[in-house]
Amino acid sequence: MNKRLLLLSADEVRRRLLRVGAVVPTLISDNANLFYLTGRVFSGYACLSANGGIRFFVKRPSMLEGDDVIYIRKPEDIAAYIPPTDVIGLELGSLAYNDAMRLKAAVGASEVVDVSVRMMAARSVKTAEEIACMESDGLKHAEIYRHIPGLFNEGMTDVELQIEIERLSRLHGCLGLFRVNGPSMELYMGNVLTGDNADAPSPYDFAMGGAGMHPSIPVGACGEQIRAGKTVMVDMNGNFNGYMTDMTRVYSCGKLESIAVKAHQCSIEICRALADMAVPGTETRLLYEKAYGIAENAGLSEYFMGHRYHAGFVGHGVGIQVNELPVLAPRSRSVIEEGNVIAIEPKFVIPGTGAVGIENTYVACKSGLRCITNAPEEIISLI
Amino acid sequence: MNKRLLLLSADEVRRRLLRVGAVVPTLISDNANLFYLTGRVFSGYACLSANGGIRFFVKRPSMLEGDDVIYIRKPEDIAAYIPPTDVIGLELGSLAYNDAMRLKAAVGASEVVDVSVRMMAARSVKTAEEIACMESDGLKHAEIYRHIPGLFNEGMTDVELQIEIERLSRLHGCLGLFRVNGPSMELYMGNVLTGDNADAPSPYDFAMGGAGMHPSIPVGACGEQIRAGKTVMVDMNGNFNGYMTDMTRVYSCGKLESIAVKAHQCSIEICRALADMAVPGTETRLLYEKAYGIAENAGLSEYFMGHRYHAGFVGHGVGIQVNELPVLAPRSRSVIEEGNVIAIEPKFVIPGTGAVGIENTYVACKSGLRCITNAPEEIISLI
Repeated sequence: MNKRLLLLSADEVRRRLLRVGAVVPTLISDNANLFYLTGRVFSGYACLSANGGIRFFVKRPSMLEGDDVIYIRKPEDIAAYIPPTDVIGLELGSLAYNDAMRLKAAVGASEVVDVSVRMMAARSVKTAEEIACMESDGLKHAEIYRHIPGLFNEGMTDVELQIEIERLSRLHGCLGLFRVNGPSMELYMGNVLTGDNADAPSPYDFAMGGAGMHPSIPVGACGEQIRAGKTVMVDMNGNFNGYMTDMTRVYSCGKLESIAVKAHQCSIEICRALADMAVPGTETRLLYEKAYGIAENAGLSEYFMGHRYHAGFVGHGVGIQVNELPVLAPRSRSVIEEGNVIAIEPKFVIPGTGAVGIENTYVACKSGLRCITNAPEEIISLI
Repeated sequence: MNKRLLLLSADEVRRRLLRVGAVVPTLISDNANLFYLTGRVFSGYACLSANGGIRFFVKRPSMLEGDDVIYIRKPEDIAAYIPPTDVIGLELGSLAYNDAMRLKAAVGASEVVDVSVRMMAARSVKTAEEIACMESDGLKHAEIYRHIPGLFNEGMTDVELQIEIERLSRLHGCLGLFRVNGPSMELYMGNVLTGDNADAPSPYDFAMGGAGMHPSIPVGACGEQIRAGKTVMVDMNGNFNGYMTDMTRVYSCGKLESIAVKAHQCSIEICRALADMAVPGTETRLLYEKAYGIAENAGLSEYFMGHRYHAGFVGHGVGIQVNELPVLAPRSRSVIEEGNVIAIEPKFVIPGTGAVGIENTYVACKSGLRCITNAPEEIISLI
């Protein structure tokens, strides 16, 4: 076990701090942001100063080392180490109200400012080192999907197939944990949907729903048997190193309705069109409009991004968390930046058949999007 | 899929609301608390009035039905449906600062009061219906542990064994999701520790640590091969219905040092002593003291609840989340109440051998604690 708190090089930390560009003294405690700034999760705070400095107030674990590592027992201990400040930057989008008030009082500030959006914006453009992590994820993620037909046995339910994919993913090094931004988003390892369960609405803001196995976590596989003429949409966890790729492929059991095959082709077409169009500077709302337009021209708009319920986006940033910036949605105000990593997932729900469409993760380059989840895109037969 | 929002009987809801005893108008949005009050997770708010009433403001999913179900698009829509109020109760221990401020403004309140502790206190005493869910968990949990020796092959690593237990658990209906109270507590499906990895400190506030497979989630199995003379401590997810039991057993590969066997026996002895002692009204700090005292008398205090790092508790409430009230810790001010469900986990870390000790989940009854995770408690040979 490496005892150095900082698992990133000094240069890499500097690059990330420059992207954050803190303008007030800031205390970071969200696990995803701590991992971004240090390369590890610990219990405590990364303290950013407005001049680009960073120090670490650590509660646990007990043996971390480094020049700027200060052990504390409680937030109130921080005050002794930082200059008095009127304003403190905190992650007000994720930090609990009580914790925010306690930190504010601990440092004697009279005002708190939100740095959640600043952190999300910083993380939305990946460094070369981050992109390398995600490329490595993409290779493993694609390799696992290639083995899925070999995991299927006739008579299996959606959840039985999912369990075998979970096991294979874990044996290939998947960490399992699925970091999501937002307090009430929950999912276990991924989503496998067959037949009309793809049309069951869920409370969560994922692209697809599913009734789930229990009302305590109502999303995903519901125990439905995988039958002839139905699709199986597989959207499983791609976290192998703290970063994750997002990837969906569709499998089938026997012949499908032609409209399902057509919609799947339309999804592939949308991915290609968006990958070409999304050069730096492109407004992400126009990417959504393009996707919707292609679906509409194909006469498929009523199935686009759901049937009984329609998700309001066609893609999203991905990295340490599965739902990062930018979002490809009608009212989004962002533009594509070089270094964004984006999942594009034009999906369709065809009543009586199930979900079709693909999802790939792409790196935004000068010439457009470069796919890092390369595997066959057509509907793959399970039998 | 049942479209009724309320999946609990009216009587059961009344019992739970009585336990909560809201004294100001309150908006609940934490998934664990929504599940407690309704029997399902949805996106939106349960609105409690000070006279014991409950209504539901729902964003998603789209088809829920019931007398008191009101669909909203955003929190600001709530104001039209509730009387003006100066004070609003919110879950300030888990609700993000920004979300709390938005809700406060949405209902025009001038003051927010925290109901997190009230909700935790309510949930700490289970109803008969909740206890039945947990008894059902305990049967399944124990059944899975009985099959663990059959999953082991010589040469396996800790994580390889864990993956086979994950699969078996899931095939037995485990939902996988591990609900934890606290923003920065993370764990995937459970913890399997072999040898000295049990002594690696983690940033998380679990009883045991482990280095984990990656610094982005530094807890648990680390890829270490399971070797002769080492223990394997298994502490896996027991969530089969939104409630979970907590259960640990120890397995071994060949002969162990006698101090490890002695410490394991001491753990069993502590569990029995605490189960007898913990009649309603017993101070939970005295239960911790009793446990520590038994360990100390056996000359094992330096290994009690860890070796390089010592966890500061010997047990905790468990239910919808794995870390509920009461906590059995030196400074705890709670007393045992009939209907508490408590995990007791006196564990020892023996350098060179690994972790030993058991964990059971108990229901607090008039005469003491009744175990609901019944399975052999001795160290079980894997070979």
